[in-house]
Amino acid sequence: MTSIEAKFAQLGTDHAPGQEVRQADRGTGGQLRGEPLAGTPVDFSHGDVNDSAFPPAPGALDAFVAGERRGGSQAYTEYRGAAVLREKVAKHLSAFTGRPIAADRELIFTPGTQGALFLALGATVNAGDRIAIIRPDYFANRKLVTFLGAEVVPVRLDYLGHTDRAGLDLTELEAAFTSGVKTFLFSNPNNPTGVVYSPDEVAAIAKLAEQYGVTVIADQLYSRLVYSGQEFTHLAAAGIAPERVLTIMGPSKTESLSGYRLGVAFGAAHLIERAEKLQAIVSLRAPGYSQAVLGTWFEEPKGWLADRTKQHEAIRDDLVKVFRKVQGLTVRTPEAGSYLFPKLPALAIPLHDFVTALRVQARVIVTPGTEFSPDTTDSIRLNFSQNHGAAVQAVERITQLIERYRKA
Amino acid sequence: MTSIEAKFAQLGTDHAPGQEVRQADRGTGGQLRGEPLAGTPVDFSHGDVNDSAFPPAPGALDAFVAGERRGGSQAYTEYRGAAVLREKVAKHLSAFTGRPIAADRELIFTPGTQGALFLALGATVNAGDRIAIIRPDYFANRKLVTFLGAEVVPVRLDYLGHTDRAGLDLTELEAAFTSGVKTFLFSNPNNPTGVVYSPDEVAAIAKLAEQYGVTVIADQLYSRLVYSGQEFTHLAAAGIAPERVLTIMGPSKTESLSGYRLGVAFGAAHLIERAEKLQAIVSLRAPGYSQAVLGTWFEEPKGWLADRTKQHEAIRDDLVKVFRKVQGLTVRTPEAGSYLFPKLPALAIPLHDFVTALRVQARVIVTPGTEFSPDTTDSIRLNFSQNHGAAVQAVERITQLIERYRKA
Repeated sequence: MTSIEAKFAQLGTDHAPGQEVRQADRGTGGQLRGEPLAGTPVDFSHGDVNDSAFPPAPGALDAFVAGERRGGSQAYTEYRGAAVLREKVAKHLSAFTGRPIAADRELIFTPGTQGALFLALGATVNAGDRIAIIRPDYFANRKLVTFLGAEVVPVRLDYLGHTDRAGLDLTELEAAFTSGVKTFLFSNPNNPTGVVYSPDEVAAIAKLAEQYGVTVIADQLYSRLVYSGQEFTHLAAAGIAPERVLTIMGPSKTESLSGYRLGVAFGAAHLIERAEKLQAIVSLRAPGYSQAVLGTWFEEPKGWLADRTKQHEAIRDDLVKVFRKVQGLTVRTPEAGSYLFPKLPALAIPLHDFVTALRVQARVIVTPGTEFSPDTTDSIRLNFSQNHGAAVQAVERITQLIERYRKA
Repeated sequence: MTSIEAKFAQLGTDHAPGQEVRQADRGTGGQLRGEPLAGTPVDFSHGDVNDSAFPPAPGALDAFVAGERRGGSQAYTEYRGAAVLREKVAKHLSAFTGRPIAADRELIFTPGTQGALFLALGATVNAGDRIAIIRPDYFANRKLVTFLGAEVVPVRLDYLGHTDRAGLDLTELEAAFTSGVKTFLFSNPNNPTGVVYSPDEVAAIAKLAEQYGVTVIADQLYSRLVYSGQEFTHLAAAGIAPERVLTIMGPSKTESLSGYRLGVAFGAAHLIERAEKLQAIVSLRAPGYSQAVLGTWFEEPKGWLADRTKQHEAIRDDLVKVFRKVQGLTVRTPEAGSYLFPKLPALAIPLHDFVTALRVQARVIVTPGTEFSPDTTDSIRLNFSQNHGAAVQAVERITQLIERYRKA
């Protein structure tokens, strides 16, 4: 039995995105070289939802205010969310994923997509279980498994070795399933790399899950922000039995509605039932008035999503161009989402010190690769949902500091 | 090891407050007697936040809208909450409790007070631990302990046996501590009974906690709504070491801000640190824009709280008067909060069927006593934060149905 001290020692948030302020007095060990670089500060740890970058999708605040005006019926919804809104959202998600979703049994609203992820894992995983997790993948995945007293079985994603598929190591995945893993969690598009699993990869996951009786949790938070020429395959519609898959999404990213804390989980009815029981003790329900904002989801003005996608694609292209000028730096062009995950050339200082130097000297906040896999000690994650011009200049400052700290 | 199916079987929400709609097709076994009673429907499972009853405290919506306008800095706060708001709230909570609270180390904002309760327990309790819980007490307490794989050690509250104190069985509490319990959770004012622990009881809890090295989680959600002639003692200021106590509160009840989902936990710095790590994987943070509403907490217009308290006290007095006309019914006058927990005379049908009859025949929703203790099979809980006139008439309908179903 792990002591509670030991358990929480494994749940560190010091380098987690959004917590950089806690490092204000983190020393730099006197290793800083040269002078600070001038420029607009950019916080790449999360998207910029201000008007100068990507503000909330239209109609959100009005929907919230209307929800507040409705009063009690909007404040006190069923724990799984207001029925009338679940009907609406289920209809959209059915059309979006190509798999019918029953509003009354197969959908729950949660406080943010993080809430959905926690409920999905908590409903599926018991202490002592072994869970397959991709490396690299979303930083909270391994922490959730630890909190639940389960064990991580890592599966490699060779995202730099491919361009026609995500790079899932299917041999490792099957070996994990053979060894008794009963839950598999992965994000698609992948966070931090922005790669999209190919139709063949998704079909293989579905087939293996069926063969070994594995429940799959698909974190598809970024599945609406898919770039030109890219196909997206929903696991839920890829031939897997409905009771074996839970999909999680939310309007926090593409739609910039993070400040409302809204997410959804949908799929296997028996797991949604458990998720609601768990939500009853974790947070009761997604914020009542905020739930009203979900009524605007997938109902954005015509052309809004296409425009937003195009704007992100343009930023992506420019940032990749700047990064690719750096000798020894490797970066795969993201196919969806708003993350870039460049692998840096060898540096003279450790990764976390370089991240500190970026913050202190370049006024740029990035997330160290170690949050996503213990192996990616040479990579940084950037959320490029930012003001276009400021982001390009900030990445230019990053490349300057790479040169300054490059290993001789 | 409990299977995950068995674990969730213990976390039922069928009778939990707010979930009554899920019972729409629950049969009544043909036991219904007589005709429906006319009257305005009243949902006593939670407070009524509509304008006809107790609307949100003034300024809340404006503060939310201002938060949304601030954009990213309000959407993406530290996981423990925006620093500037923590400073403000810590100052108020220090004055309120009489115990200084450090904004940077001893306070966290959470999604609702339920979120605070989950984080407090999750930060304190490990699988296999034994936790002392009051019976009766808030319905989620035992479920939280179950989810965390720990064991409930019940301690009796003889709330009907006293009027000068809550009725805590100190012998049982000490026996629990002697037997190795290291965490004690209790609500003060007590939910569901509305009784307040006396200064002596609180002092005894503090003393025993010190003596046996027990961490105490004090759920003081209702501690601002205290009726005339009643004294309230904050455990945190009762001579217990700061590292032994976490207090949880929130603006959902007295202030009717439940639709924003806001709560706080404050106290022991090392537990707040863990709570933030846990929040990072459960929901990341309290809703960003909603956090701005906490800037209005404890800053309501002069006289607002006194008026609201007086209005609740008047409702309390009227409802108690109606209930006390029923022969064989016992109810203690609540000293704080907005709950009534009458013990009914013997009925000819089981409690859950009577609760169904109330819903179907009297259009009144109450919560069965079994949610709060397995022993209170003859009690119902009412949240009387309702429209005054409608509440009185609804309780009159309850008394009519008690007579209709009274055991011969």
